[in-house]
Amino acid sequence: MPTLIKNGRIITAEQDYSADIYIERETVTTIGKDLNVQADKTIDASGKYVIPGGIDVHTHMDLPFGGTASSDDFETGTIAAAHGGTTCIVDFAVQSKGTSMRHALDTWLRKSEGKAAVDFGLHMILTELPDDWLPEMDALVKHEGVTSFKMFTAYPGVFMVDDATIFKAMKRTADNGGLICMHAENGGVIDLLVKKMLAEGKTTPNVHALSRPATAEQEATHRVIALSEMAGVPVYVVHVSSHLAMEQIREARGRGLPTYGETCPQYLYLAYEDYADGSFEGAKYICSPPIRERENQEFLWKALKGDDLQAVSTDHCPFCMKEGYKGLPKQKELGKGDFSKIPNGLPGVENRLHLLYEGGVVKRGWSMNRFVQLVSTAPAKLMGLFPRKGTVAVGSDADIVIWDPKRPHTISANSHFMRVDYNPYESMTVSGSPALVLSRGKVVFDGDKFVGKSGDGQFLRRGQYNLV
Amino acid sequence: MPTLIKNGRIITAEQDYSADIYIERETVTTIGKDLNVQADKTIDASGKYVIPGGIDVHTHMDLPFGGTASSDDFETGTIAAAHGGTTCIVDFAVQSKGTSMRHALDTWLRKSEGKAAVDFGLHMILTELPDDWLPEMDALVKHEGVTSFKMFTAYPGVFMVDDATIFKAMKRTADNGGLICMHAENGGVIDLLVKKMLAEGKTTPNVHALSRPATAEQEATHRVIALSEMAGVPVYVVHVSSHLAMEQIREARGRGLPTYGETCPQYLYLAYEDYADGSFEGAKYICSPPIRERENQEFLWKALKGDDLQAVSTDHCPFCMKEGYKGLPKQKELGKGDFSKIPNGLPGVENRLHLLYEGGVVKRGWSMNRFVQLVSTAPAKLMGLFPRKGTVAVGSDADIVIWDPKRPHTISANSHFMRVDYNPYESMTVSGSPALVLSRGKVVFDGDKFVGKSGDGQFLRRGQYNLV
Amino acid sequence: MPTLIKNGRIITAEQDYSADIYIERETVTTIGKDLNVQADKTIDASGKYVIPGGIDVHTHMDLPFGGTASSDDFETGTIAAAHGGTTCIVDFAVQSKGTSMRHALDTWLRKSEGKAAVDFGLHMILTELPDDWLPEMDALVKHEGVTSFKMFTAYPGVFMVDDATIFKAMKRTADNGGLICMHAENGGVIDLLVKKMLAEGKTTPNVHALSRPATAEQEATHRVIALSEMAGVPVYVVHVSSHLAMEQIREARGRGLPTYGETCPQYLYLAYEDYADGSFEGAKYICSPPIRERENQEFLWKALKGDDLQAVSTDHCPFCMKEGYKGLPKQKELGKGDFSKIPNGLPGVENRLHLLYEGGVVKRGWSMNRFVQLVSTAPAKLMGLFPRKGTVAVGSDADIVIWDPKRPHTISANSHFMRVDYNPYESMTVSGSPALVLSRGKVVFDGDKFVGKSGDGQFLRRGQYNLV
Amino acid sequence: MPTLIKNGRIITAEQDYSADIYIERETVTTIGKDLNVQADKTIDASGKYVIPGGIDVHTHMDLPFGGTASSDDFETGTIAAAHGGTTCIVDFAVQSKGTSMRHALDTWLRKSEGKAAVDFGLHMILTELPDDWLPEMDALVKHEGVTSFKMFTAYPGVFMVDDATIFKAMKRTADNGGLICMHAENGGVIDLLVKKMLAEGKTTPNVHALSRPATAEQEATHRVIALSEMAGVPVYVVHVSSHLAMEQIREARGRGLPTYGETCPQYLYLAYEDYADGSFEGAKYICSPPIRERENQEFLWKALKGDDLQAVSTDHCPFCMKEGYKGLPKQKELGKGDFSKIPNGLPGVENRLHLLYEGGVVKRGWSMNRFVQLVSTAPAKLMGLFPRKGTVAVGSDADIVIWDPKRPHTISANSHFMRVDYNPYESMTVSGSPALVLSRGKVVFDGDKFVGKSGDGQFLRRGQYNLV
Repeated sequence: MPTLIKNGRIITAEQDYSADIYIERETVTTIGKDLNVQADKTIDASGKYVIPGGIDVHTHMDLPFGGTASSDDFETGTIAAAHGGTTCIVDFAVQSKGTSMRHALDTWLRKSEGKAAVDFGLHMILTELPDDWLPEMDALVKHEGVTSFKMFTAYPGVFMVDDATIFKAMKRTADNGGLICMHAENGGVIDLLVKKMLAEGKTTPNVHALSRPATAEQEATHRVIALSEMAGVPVYVVHVSSHLAMEQIREARGRGLPTYGETCPQYLYLAYEDYADGSFEGAKYICSPPIRERENQEFLWKALKGDDLQAVSTDHCPFCMKEGYKGLPKQKELGKGDFSKIPNGLPGVENRLHLLYEGGVVKRGWSMNRFVQLVSTAPAKLMGLFPRKGTVAVGSDADIVIWDPKRPHTISANSHFMRVDYNPYESMTVSGSPALVLSRGKVVFDGDKFVGKSGDGQFLRRGQYNLV
Repeated sequence: MPTLIKNGRIITAEQDYSADIYIERETVTTIGKDLNVQADKTIDASGKYVIPGGIDVHTHMDLPFGGTASSDDFETGTIAAAHGGTTCIVDFAVQSKGTSMRHALDTWLRKSEGKAAVDFGLHMILTELPDDWLPEMDALVKHEGVTSFKMFTAYPGVFMVDDATIFKAMKRTADNGGLICMHAENGGVIDLLVKKMLAEGKTTPNVHALSRPATAEQEATHRVIALSEMAGVPVYVVHVSSHLAMEQIREARGRGLPTYGETCPQYLYLAYEDYADGSFEGAKYICSPPIRERENQEFLWKALKGDDLQAVSTDHCPFCMKEGYKGLPKQKELGKGDFSKIPNGLPGVENRLHLLYEGGVVKRGWSMNRFVQLVSTAPAKLMGLFPRKGTVAVGSDADIVIWDPKRPHTISANSHFMRVDYNPYESMTVSGSPALVLSRGKVVFDGDKFVGKSGDGQFLRRGQYNLV
Repeated sequence: MPTLIKNGRIITAEQDYSADIYIERETVTTIGKDLNVQADKTIDASGKYVIPGGIDVHTHMDLPFGGTASSDDFETGTIAAAHGGTTCIVDFAVQSKGTSMRHALDTWLRKSEGKAAVDFGLHMILTELPDDWLPEMDALVKHEGVTSFKMFTAYPGVFMVDDATIFKAMKRTADNGGLICMHAENGGVIDLLVKKMLAEGKTTPNVHALSRPATAEQEATHRVIALSEMAGVPVYVVHVSSHLAMEQIREARGRGLPTYGETCPQYLYLAYEDYADGSFEGAKYICSPPIRERENQEFLWKALKGDDLQAVSTDHCPFCMKEGYKGLPKQKELGKGDFSKIPNGLPGVENRLHLLYEGGVVKRGWSMNRFVQLVSTAPAKLMGLFPRKGTVAVGSDADIVIWDPKRPHTISANSHFMRVDYNPYESMTVSGSPALVLSRGKVVFDGDKFVGKSGDGQFLRRGQYNLV
Repeated sequence: MPTLIKNGRIITAEQDYSADIYIERETVTTIGKDLNVQADKTIDASGKYVIPGGIDVHTHMDLPFGGTASSDDFETGTIAAAHGGTTCIVDFAVQSKGTSMRHALDTWLRKSEGKAAVDFGLHMILTELPDDWLPEMDALVKHEGVTSFKMFTAYPGVFMVDDATIFKAMKRTADNGGLICMHAENGGVIDLLVKKMLAEGKTTPNVHALSRPATAEQEATHRVIALSEMAGVPVYVVHVSSHLAMEQIREARGRGLPTYGETCPQYLYLAYEDYADGSFEGAKYICSPPIRERENQEFLWKALKGDDLQAVSTDHCPFCMKEGYKGLPKQKELGKGDFSKIPNGLPGVENRLHLLYEGGVVKRGWSMNRFVQLVSTAPAKLMGLFPRKGTVAVGSDADIVIWDPKRPHTISANSHFMRVDYNPYESMTVSGSPALVLSRGKVVFDGDKFVGKSGDGQFLRRGQYNLV
């Protein structure tokens, strides 16, 4: 059942040209002018951009956290993703204290079984690393397609590992060819500040941000880069939220280090000023690192344009504001009266392309190439998915979005597909949105509704990172 | 007479995949797996890279300089280019004191008439700018496809213009959408140092470098960036030779300025140490900025990889070492006994891809994508030639190089096609070289010899720069 | 007629202790606990600081500028200085086109003859430098005690010299041991902006600032530092007004260069916002570089504390707002309807210590040592006056200020001693002020009024700069 | 028994003048020209410098380390110090796991009782900090004159504390007015590298350096500065050994932070190249941070001149190369076959002024003022000893060195007074040395031998740091 996309303006990270695209089975097989081919389905893309499907390499579906779990699972989350033009996610398996990485991988594969509506990969989160577990890291990279490991310098007692452990993991990864992902905030500092502020009776959501200064993020960012430099391993700093942290990445890259960073829509659009008043509505904005003062935003946008940051992901990790939404338990409300108990996280997987297109292409004059690079190509290369994913080219998976620059979309919890009772960008109208979305050659969003199938999404065995 | 290139591994600045390419008339019309089409000519590219033709945006064919003229004209120079995989050059028309830009353009179009073997564009060099000439700048951009203007902060009395003139040209270019190119060295400083050194009896070729310190380049680079920032115009710094100057560009880009820089093979491969002995053989290496101490090289290679510099051109401007070669007059020898009279310039247009592939891909592990970006795609985007040139895509000119990574080539004046009696990289053997070169769909180099035709190269009316 | 100062708290740039000071003739001869000596005059300094007299190394008394002359001459200006605790100034002789430096020196010595109430030195301003004048530079340094030369990169057609001239002067000064002082703004850029703005009908005083962007200062600052680095000469950048320019000095110093910078009270206290409204009152604030946006101030204060800037001078160059004050002609009013005709300059010589003490010691918690360093010791060392001036020590001139930290002073044109009809700091009350001022052992300000004598000030033959 | 020092050239951090100094009891009471006073002892200082006694704020006398103890105790160490012109040290009391700071202080006061030949203070080293110990920190600052606390980011299991502990101590110190001193190297990284290298059979002394890369020092330096910034406390980074670490301090200071750093003679004079051969002689050079590649030296010298580092101390911590010297046990030899067991430390307290004078004043043209600032005045101000110590002024302790610039001294273990069997600077001849040394008014070194008395040195209750 071949498909033909006609007359679209094809945009990749580099290219910009008009041609027809012929898809057989799951991949693109021909691109040409006025293709004269047989197709079961013909899509007219006149006046629209044809871009590779979005890739969100930082999501947390069904993640146990703070006594509850993120409210989207692999089914609801990937269906929401598809609606927004994202046809691939990379989520995280979490190795818990005392259990193996293999066990974590199995657990997460079970969570996703029969559920994912688009393709997905998994990173492995490490919370400890005895010497005799090191071979398991190699096995994940070589045999399981789990080629990236994430660690935290924050959340003492939960996720935090010390520098010795980080360095050990980095040295091993330098040998086995994987990629290290880091959550960079100084947990020791934050822990003391949290205790101090609670002791002083400061309990409202905004205090979350005050207890996690940007300098604590900058410090840890500098540290993990230094550790990676000594270990000789590439490092990908997740969710860079502040100008200070971004500058560390920029500095390292200027010295030629394989240092990479992502930021997320929440750091580009939301600001501390939005919840500084201390009302509990601010719980909507609680995530870590926290959402910073507005002055950081323009530095992050500039860094995305200038390649000082390389990717935009969402850190999608939704929690409901009110108990009972679609039968879900108490979530954000767990932190009423104690900001430190508010589950950390925001929804976003559905709106990433909406927001980046609007903020980048429409508002700041980015080329469409840069937009595609940030939401699809660079993530694919970083996470070992390229050229299977991340571009429109002969031989690549036909994960394709027909992007209509003249199709406004109003973001709202009333209409979104994420399983969460609020949207941080409520009522924002963006200028462009997907007119059609294909996942491995099949239409999954027809411009109106999800027309794909849960379980059609495959687990992706990823290769080595390759972004040079 | 359609042409089919089969089984090649197609590399663009972003992509890497295997497919067939179908060329009709002058452009690529279809790319696909196992294309079943009619072709007059079929090229088997198995085991080889298929890349866009090289674009050298800094050449000086038939340039009057220092009492002589560069030894290659548009015919010999472009034929040499084609041999090395370069299918497009951008040369410079020079507005002389008292004559108009229009006149300069006509002069250079005449120089190239019936000669160029591959396509070419022209920048305009300004040596003065009375207020009433400003509309002519606009006309060049809008009607003639001459969309870039070059000025010099060096060569007082010849090319040098003062800051007021530079700033005036920049302000106008900010309005008309052109690009400013700058030769950045402090001519005032250099002039005094040259006089001082000659007065001290220091006359040998190496003193040329001593009289042009890297700090003089760094200063002027900082200055032209500052002027461009105040004028609100993009600036492209040509032939960056030193670590110090490169850092200025990197710093500006980090602040989000549209600042760009190129370097040249001579700054990547040759070093002051090569001619420090003072022998007249050193005249081979005399160009401006001078070839620097070896320690600069690795910083420049790193800057190319990390996108702190965006392009590699040659500043091809050859002069013979000995009088009489192919009937040419005395050239480098004009400076015997006085380094300041040695014509400034080196050959290179034929060897750029050889040298970058060897130094970047083979020696430093760059991806082929980065190689293509630096020698073709970025130059095309910067100089308003993309997507017509600079990529392999449906609709683009079929300027294509079949690059054979297993085809060693020994560089030598004995065999090169440039009209000059020496090669600065004499006897260097590189690992890969072009197996075949097409210019607008026609084979011009068949792997053995030039098979194109002088005069087939067209003058390109360029559009606006677009590298974001 | 020996003088004894008893019980003061002596503060130098380094020290802080209580002792008596014995002065014989013009110098300090003994410092000790409870000195048992004969004195004609005993001053009780209990509860007060005893500090070296202030040194203002940037004043323009009786300077011809823009068709008028600065309104203070050497008499009124130095009497005003004495009132404010400044016991030494270094003013500028101006070499005009076509006349020699010797002539300029003579002219300025005549201007000051019999007038100066405190000691003074002279810098030499160069406006041209033919090769055969170079020996005269040496003579000034060696025989006349004029050991510093100032040049301008701004004011084309008036003071501006090109880079070649600057570099020539620097090279010579590197040999003869003098110091180079630079006014750093890009005159070419400014000239075009001024013309453009006037042509657009923008004529109000505030446009002066818009036509002289901080980037034009930053550029020239970077340039003169680079030139000085290549010449191997120390450089002192006068009146640093912006964060951007200051960072250039800081960067150079970090590389170990002998680069120095001063700022002035107007850049620390006044802001563009104060005259952004465009009213003609803004003429009070017109000087070059212009007074910048307020955000610059704190960076300058911080730079003074951290030694990224080394001195505070005033660039005292007053012009009256209204014609007829004390018989003076039209001055600031020359620029009604054309900001470019407003004479550039502000009064300040009387209030420098008031303002620095208040802003530094009182408001920002500086040590008294740092205050003394900035207003006296560093200027003395930079300008070759140390240890004769700039400290309280045995053998030094008894230029001493009894500073009373509990003696408030309200700054006002109604009461100041400068010959100008306004004060930029009108009505500001500072916490401390001089209780008594001695110049070479004689009381010149008794806490109430000037009790010295015009003409008692001597021309100082200065030595080499020495601030390490 | 008053003492008179006649005709010396008095040099402080700021001043330079000739005068007589009169000392009564323990302090300077009068400074003047040709003092006509009664003295029991008159010292002729003609042709010599009179400078404040050296202050070494980083020594380890009688320190238990690595199964032995440093070979100098408070008696031998301070006598050696006096020989070299150092009249005050600040040593370290060590709080051990499970014992209180008070106990540590008592222990160290006992160690020094009746022994010290010159005055001394004590810092407190923290190895743990339960919340209920915090008031003890305040008490040390307020009541005991122990106003500085040192922590380590290295030596896991021995001295190392985690970031949470460091930050806790910093926050408390911000409140009580003390100073934080930090040993900055990343202990986690180093520990793994040490194990790895030993496992690979790399056991020679030079491997010590390879296991402690400069990046590990740079990282920790950046970290402790960031922690101090968040805590709002001044931080003093001890023994800065590398260009990389120094740049962190410089950067912080440029932002106006109260960040300070010292380096030591071993990092200025010795280099990794000196022991790279792996012979056991290299054990002489083993200290932490390790002695770096030679290229670091000039950056450190430059930083000292430019005030990017503020003080020079020794980290004096000697261990003998051979068992049995003066009855001492096996020390450096403990690490034969395992570099990690070599006691870390070098002798130096006797030679600091020799080495700084030679390297700074003689070789690099520093002013004598800068020399005095680095070896005496800045240490005094940083450690709360000024103006009692650190200057030559009326009211200050008469800790005075008559420095003879024409008195060469050959450094050698054969003649030095430190109790250790080698000198790292063996056979180096320096141009100047002390001709006489006074401690609180008494001659302790007469140019020939020690003439003071063990036990005469007093424990100094220090005040707050004050270096601005």
